[in-house]
Amino acid sequence: MRYFTKRYHMPGTSPGTLTSPKIKRGVPLSIKLIDFSTADFSELILKSPQDSTPFLGKASVTWIHIQGDVEPDIMSQLGKLFGLHHLALEDVINVGQRPKIDTYDEHFFMTMSHPLVDKDSDRIKIDQVSLFLGPCFVVSFHPGEHDPFEPVRERLRNKVGRIRYRGADYLLYTLLDVVIDEGFPVLEWLGEEIEKMETELLASPTHSTLHWLHKQKRELLMLRRVLWPQREVLNKLVREETPFINEATKIYFRDCYDHTIQIMDLLEIYRDTVTGLLDVYLSSISYRLNENMRVLTVIATIFIPLTFLVGVYGMNFTHADSPWAMPELHWYYGYPALWLVMICSVIGMLIFFRIKKWF
Amino acid sequence: MRYFTKRYHMPGTSPGTLTSPKIKRGVPLSIKLIDFSTADFSELILKSPQDSTPFLGKASVTWIHIQGDVEPDIMSQLGKLFGLHHLALEDVINVGQRPKIDTYDEHFFMTMSHPLVDKDSDRIKIDQVSLFLGPCFVVSFHPGEHDPFEPVRERLRNKVGRIRYRGADYLLYTLLDVVIDEGFPVLEWLGEEIEKMETELLASPTHSTLHWLHKQKRELLMLRRVLWPQREVLNKLVREETPFINEATKIYFRDCYDHTIQIMDLLEIYRDTVTGLLDVYLSSISYRLNENMRVLTVIATIFIPLTFLVGVYGMNFTHADSPWAMPELHWYYGYPALWLVMICSVIGMLIFFRIKKWF
Amino acid sequence: MRYFTKRYHMPGTSPGTLTSPKIKRGVPLSIKLIDFSTADFSELILKSPQDSTPFLGKASVTWIHIQGDVEPDIMSQLGKLFGLHHLALEDVINVGQRPKIDTYDEHFFMTMSHPLVDKDSDRIKIDQVSLFLGPCFVVSFHPGEHDPFEPVRERLRNKVGRIRYRGADYLLYTLLDVVIDEGFPVLEWLGEEIEKMETELLASPTHSTLHWLHKQKRELLMLRRVLWPQREVLNKLVREETPFINEATKIYFRDCYDHTIQIMDLLEIYRDTVTGLLDVYLSSISYRLNENMRVLTVIATIFIPLTFLVGVYGMNFTHADSPWAMPELHWYYGYPALWLVMICSVIGMLIFFRIKKWF
Amino acid sequence: MRYFTKRYHMPGTSPGTLTSPKIKRGVPLSIKLIDFSTADFSELILKSPQDSTPFLGKASVTWIHIQGDVEPDIMSQLGKLFGLHHLALEDVINVGQRPKIDTYDEHFFMTMSHPLVDKDSDRIKIDQVSLFLGPCFVVSFHPGEHDPFEPVRERLRNKVGRIRYRGADYLLYTLLDVVIDEGFPVLEWLGEEIEKMETELLASPTHSTLHWLHKQKRELLMLRRVLWPQREVLNKLVREETPFINEATKIYFRDCYDHTIQIMDLLEIYRDTVTGLLDVYLSSISYRLNENMRVLTVIATIFIPLTFLVGVYGMNFTHADSPWAMPELHWYYGYPALWLVMICSVIGMLIFFRIKKWF
Amino acid sequence: MRYFTKRYHMPGTSPGTLTSPKIKRGVPLSIKLIDFSTADFSELILKSPQDSTPFLGKASVTWIHIQGDVEPDIMSQLGKLFGLHHLALEDVINVGQRPKIDTYDEHFFMTMSHPLVDKDSDRIKIDQVSLFLGPCFVVSFHPGEHDPFEPVRERLRNKVGRIRYRGADYLLYTLLDVVIDEGFPVLEWLGEEIEKMETELLASPTHSTLHWLHKQKRELLMLRRVLWPQREVLNKLVREETPFINEATKIYFRDCYDHTIQIMDLLEIYRDTVTGLLDVYLSSISYRLNENMRVLTVIATIFIPLTFLVGVYGMNFTHADSPWAMPELHWYYGYPALWLVMICSVIGMLIFFRIKKWF
Repeated sequence: MRYFTKRYHMPGTSPGTLTSPKIKRGVPLSIKLIDFSTADFSELILKSPQDSTPFLGKASVTWIHIQGDVEPDIMSQLGKLFGLHHLALEDVINVGQRPKIDTYDEHFFMTMSHPLVDKDSDRIKIDQVSLFLGPCFVVSFHPGEHDPFEPVRERLRNKVGRIRYRGADYLLYTLLDVVIDEGFPVLEWLGEEIEKMETELLASPTHSTLHWLHKQKRELLMLRRVLWPQREVLNKLVREETPFINEATKIYFRDCYDHTIQIMDLLEIYRDTVTGLLDVYLSSISYRLNENMRVLTVIATIFIPLTFLVGVYGMNFTHADSPWAMPELHWYYGYPALWLVMICSVIGMLIFFRIKKWF
Repeated sequence: MRYFTKRYHMPGTSPGTLTSPKIKRGVPLSIKLIDFSTADFSELILKSPQDSTPFLGKASVTWIHIQGDVEPDIMSQLGKLFGLHHLALEDVINVGQRPKIDTYDEHFFMTMSHPLVDKDSDRIKIDQVSLFLGPCFVVSFHPGEHDPFEPVRERLRNKVGRIRYRGADYLLYTLLDVVIDEGFPVLEWLGEEIEKMETELLASPTHSTLHWLHKQKRELLMLRRVLWPQREVLNKLVREETPFINEATKIYFRDCYDHTIQIMDLLEIYRDTVTGLLDVYLSSISYRLNENMRVLTVIATIFIPLTFLVGVYGMNFTHADSPWAMPELHWYYGYPALWLVMICSVIGMLIFFRIKKWF
Repeated sequence: MRYFTKRYHMPGTSPGTLTSPKIKRGVPLSIKLIDFSTADFSELILKSPQDSTPFLGKASVTWIHIQGDVEPDIMSQLGKLFGLHHLALEDVINVGQRPKIDTYDEHFFMTMSHPLVDKDSDRIKIDQVSLFLGPCFVVSFHPGEHDPFEPVRERLRNKVGRIRYRGADYLLYTLLDVVIDEGFPVLEWLGEEIEKMETELLASPTHSTLHWLHKQKRELLMLRRVLWPQREVLNKLVREETPFINEATKIYFRDCYDHTIQIMDLLEIYRDTVTGLLDVYLSSISYRLNENMRVLTVIATIFIPLTFLVGVYGMNFTHADSPWAMPELHWYYGYPALWLVMICSVIGMLIFFRIKKWF
Repeated sequence: MRYFTKRYHMPGTSPGTLTSPKIKRGVPLSIKLIDFSTADFSELILKSPQDSTPFLGKASVTWIHIQGDVEPDIMSQLGKLFGLHHLALEDVINVGQRPKIDTYDEHFFMTMSHPLVDKDSDRIKIDQVSLFLGPCFVVSFHPGEHDPFEPVRERLRNKVGRIRYRGADYLLYTLLDVVIDEGFPVLEWLGEEIEKMETELLASPTHSTLHWLHKQKRELLMLRRVLWPQREVLNKLVREETPFINEATKIYFRDCYDHTIQIMDLLEIYRDTVTGLLDVYLSSISYRLNENMRVLTVIATIFIPLTFLVGVYGMNFTHADSPWAMPELHWYYGYPALWLVMICSVIGMLIFFRIKKWF
Repeated sequence: MRYFTKRYHMPGTSPGTLTSPKIKRGVPLSIKLIDFSTADFSELILKSPQDSTPFLGKASVTWIHIQGDVEPDIMSQLGKLFGLHHLALEDVINVGQRPKIDTYDEHFFMTMSHPLVDKDSDRIKIDQVSLFLGPCFVVSFHPGEHDPFEPVRERLRNKVGRIRYRGADYLLYTLLDVVIDEGFPVLEWLGEEIEKMETELLASPTHSTLHWLHKQKRELLMLRRVLWPQREVLNKLVREETPFINEATKIYFRDCYDHTIQIMDLLEIYRDTVTGLLDVYLSSISYRLNENMRVLTVIATIFIPLTFLVGVYGMNFTHADSPWAMPELHWYYGYPALWLVMICSVIGMLIFFRIKKWF
């Protein structure tokens, strides 16, 4: 739940105020610039956004990627260099935004959710990826330690695929494609976890199963909330007329859109499965209660009357006082007769239980 | 539930009748006027709405804020001064309206819900904020003790941000922003309450947990009903052509809209979590019933047959009367043999329970 | 459920056939006519619809209200006088229609649902109000004993508000406003009933609670089905171009529309609350079962082994026959030792239960 | 479930292939022709569709109704005579279609569901009614024994209502009206069944109640699937421009549309009621379990300790061996003292149970 | 669940990369070509896609069907021959796509789901069918062993129906029709399985029923996810303007669309039925628990007090020590009197249980 809360300004703060975020990830900042056209390619590590000035205003595509915790002053430098809107800059710093796409006059701004399995805590971690697209620039942000865009950089360097022959919009597509496709391994991990739990649960449900199911349900809930709006974002990219995106590139965004739908489909199936497992858990518990009760009822129903019977002959009425007082005690076949009665009653009850289908 | 009911007129009353509300909050009325342009700034506490006449009809933006219980005659004075519609005036007095936006020819009228945690009763309190926007005036109403707009006034005085350079629509945005963002601390408080309860519940569910869950569910229900229409209101402000709102200001309303969506997302997650906790509660209760039953069944199943057995040898059949009468009692090893039988049956049952995985 | 059924024609009857309704309310028919313009005002009790002929075809607004059971011949007279469609006339007689609005060439026809608490049976009763609006006439029908439109008549007589200065459409609005606002006291009554039950249920659930919840759920279900379409009807009045309604009057219909939404909101909250109470009921029952079981388990687990133990020493093995036969019986400290063993086992079990948190 | 399945062609069959249906109803085929205009009227029983040739191509309305099992060759004759599309002909033979409306160039084709209570099996039976409408002909099909259109024929013969004065579209409306209105008696029957079960269930739930509820839920499910699309079909007829339907007749189709909505409303209420009854059933069972447990717990808790106590004094420790061995046995007031102890413990427990509110 | 996962590229791979799929079905590849016009017909088995060159560019319709595992190089040959888009080619190899339709400039691309009952494992297997439609060619892919299109080929050879007289769009329709109609036998199988389980469950629920229900629910879930989008695909084909599909053929696609809706209807009914069966299962378990408890309670409540009573007279108080010590033991009618008391108490309890309706 932490992903969502604690990420807001004090109510009443002036909008677009850039303040240092309260919760830092502690990842040192690094600024990577790539400038490319079909023919040329330059790659630089920048000390400050200012250093990118020589590359601006040219026809080549300029891609600046900022990894780690960003500071307000770096954001405002970037804002001035590329003409970025201050409301968008605020959303980059206050990570934990809902995936969305905002169109401004001279660029547009997107935030996406980048899910990742944290192997240490066995939980899913979400990072916010922020992206600006202008006529010939892309500015991207990722707050975590791990830079997911390294393979894209590799493809740019080696001229793999179409990426060097196309504009900034295709670059944006490649980045989105990476972020969205990172959802698949996360879902695969989740699917395996659920299948493991399923076999365990169907074998023998324990109380810890319940905790696990509750935790997993919340995880899926969170993941759904975070990934659902991405579908909408991609849909907007495919359907709407947007100035910075080439009609030919839209086919690729449509492919991305299909991936987000596949991810949502999987999430829905997982959610239904986990809900189904909760039902199975509850039914199993009920069933076992029933089983226990059956054993108890059978044992108690057989032995309680017998105990009463032997109690009768344990009474200290004596024949001496009255001929009415338990003459059976002194019959020659009294004791075997009692056993006969008891055995018959046991057999009778067993037949009764068998008819009632209790075992 | 009280928030909704008891706020209606008698059916059959003439529409637009301004009557003193039945339930007063007992907050003394105060009328604050601010008139500003980029250059000028005046701030006044008014005794009566009439005192604002000198500021009307000028190009500068006039903002009148009325805090506390309003009386019908003050409303009708305001109505005449600014040309406000009598149906809107009625809705200001009858607080508890659903958030909505009504467009009239010469102004538009909005009501919003302002949630607040009442620390004394640990419950959420909702106040209705009413707002009128005309070409160069804003009239706002808040019935509670606490004036949430003080930070805005501060920013106006100190020329912080863009607020002094823009028109009445930007002022309206700032006020909406404050009201909506006040939802975040309320949700944070709720989130912490839910997390506290969650750890408690997973440790050991008690009957009071159920009452708490029921109360919280109702609170969330109420909050949802009250905040949900705000989304629609903001959406209308962003999408529709409205005469009093500048196209450039719409970007800011879009930001507000995003906040309302984030708040609704959080509410949904909380609701799903509370529903999930109810399931956990029920399952835990079932599980514990099962546990109890298992102990009872094991104990009863082991000892009831044994009690029967020792009952047998407590019977007063005497060997004297018949050789059939419990000769075991007089065997040399009769007593140890009985113990052997009993111990074997106990061991047998324990093995049976172990196979059935009962402990 | 009776509200809906038994109100249909035999399948195969010719459409628009006016037949006397099968179920009559037994309310004597009364026809009230009011004809007004800003200057003039006449009020009459008519014997037959025919008597209204002098008022027709004038510019003044004519309002005919028919209270009580209508007969086919009165309907057909009205139909001829005002040119009403025979399908609409049929729907007036067959009360129990879904709220709807039908536009015909020369008038339009509405049915609304008028809810009322029947204090005798503690149930909600629904009456169908039918309304025709033409260019300068309104014809209204109410089948019950109580005429809800008396306050409107009073306002017309006394020239209260705008009603005398406006046309037939404003009169229609006033009537709708009355019918819709009658929903508020009904909901208030329901809300109080639910709150009463809530405190009762949280204190101690009994079996009659369940019956009450079931009954209330059905009542809410019915109310929802009957009131929900009114929202749609009002929405149609506000949004669509309709020839008989002035653009300026639409603001008032918008206000009515807001009221229907508020009523639906309240109904939803009530429904969710009643559903929540059912969950609370079930959980309470489970919880109490658990409590019972715990007491039984504790008592049985403590005493069953002890009973076995004292049973052992009640056996009639005699030391005389064998030194193996219960020598403890003859030990000097045998009896106190047995008590020691028993007390220790009780203490052990109590510790075990305390660890398991059973009391 | 049988209504839906077994009605498909082998996958891979050529579309529009007319084959004899696998499941025949065994109803002999009869072809009834009526040809009418305002002035003229002829009624015939045809041996073969060919016999209708003299009536085609005239301005009068020709209505052919085919009752019973149709054979492929009759269908193809009809197809040629009226120019019907082969896909539509296929759907007439393969009854069990979803209600739908298909527009072809020269006619349109509808299928409707005709529900009927089968009094013998206490179940609801669905028949498919197929209808073709051309410029001046209607061809209708009904596979069952009972011809629902007899009252329409009667009205045609006797010139009742508007039916003889209007065209083929009004005839179609009359037929639809009959088919849809036949839903009302079915729903009335269902409503009475549900009410009967409700009183029974609230009095004393048995296991057969569950079976009944399950059966009824499935029946409602089926009915809903079969009737729901009719609403859509009627809506299409009312809203869309269709060449064969006069604008003036649409008012009548709107009335039919209202009936389908009323039927769906009733079905929804029934479904919610049956679901509510299932909850009541489950809660009643839980409640009774609780009651049983309470009795058992009270009895066991009172008598198990007492049984232990009397067991103690049944032990064979003898005073002779040790002064410690149960001296109470030999006290003068030992026996009454024991009873005192036992009575006190019973009273104590009863007070405890009373405090716990167990009876 | 396996159907969905493991079918994605490594995040970061260049889009449109054709790599050999990780999971192969092991079905040898076969390429079947049919080229036909109304007059001509040729059928060939190709070794490589290249062999189809003589047939391209002619007015006749060319249909290439590829059965079995496809290799990247075959895909790229096909891509070059017919000008297919590389994103579409990628989706053919990575089977497990959601049914969809993508329009490209010179062709369009569809994927459909082909369900099949795997009789060995009693589970439903899904195969992806991929289809390309160009102006006069169709390319189809099926990865499984069984070629579902053989009947179509037969109809082409024998000139059955309209297939030889129409273009590539009608051929596409025929293929879609086969794939969609294969859903019916699968649903019929499922329906029979559910009915079988239903009778079994209503007779006597066992724990394996629960596993079966869980499995079936997942199967239905999966089937629904896989078949639901087909409806959307067909709807798009019917509604939208598409260059490659003749207006006259759309009537046939509308028929296909009806079939997808019928299939979804059936699936919904099955899902609701399976959910209903889970409720029945749970209720049955509760009911049986209740039954067990009733027997236990009756037996225990009758015999526990009696056992106490006979325990009393088993105590070793002796009359010798005190006249208070159980004088009843020595009464002449003591023993019969005790039996009288016991029998009376049993009868009393039986009457009590009968009143409580426990048997």
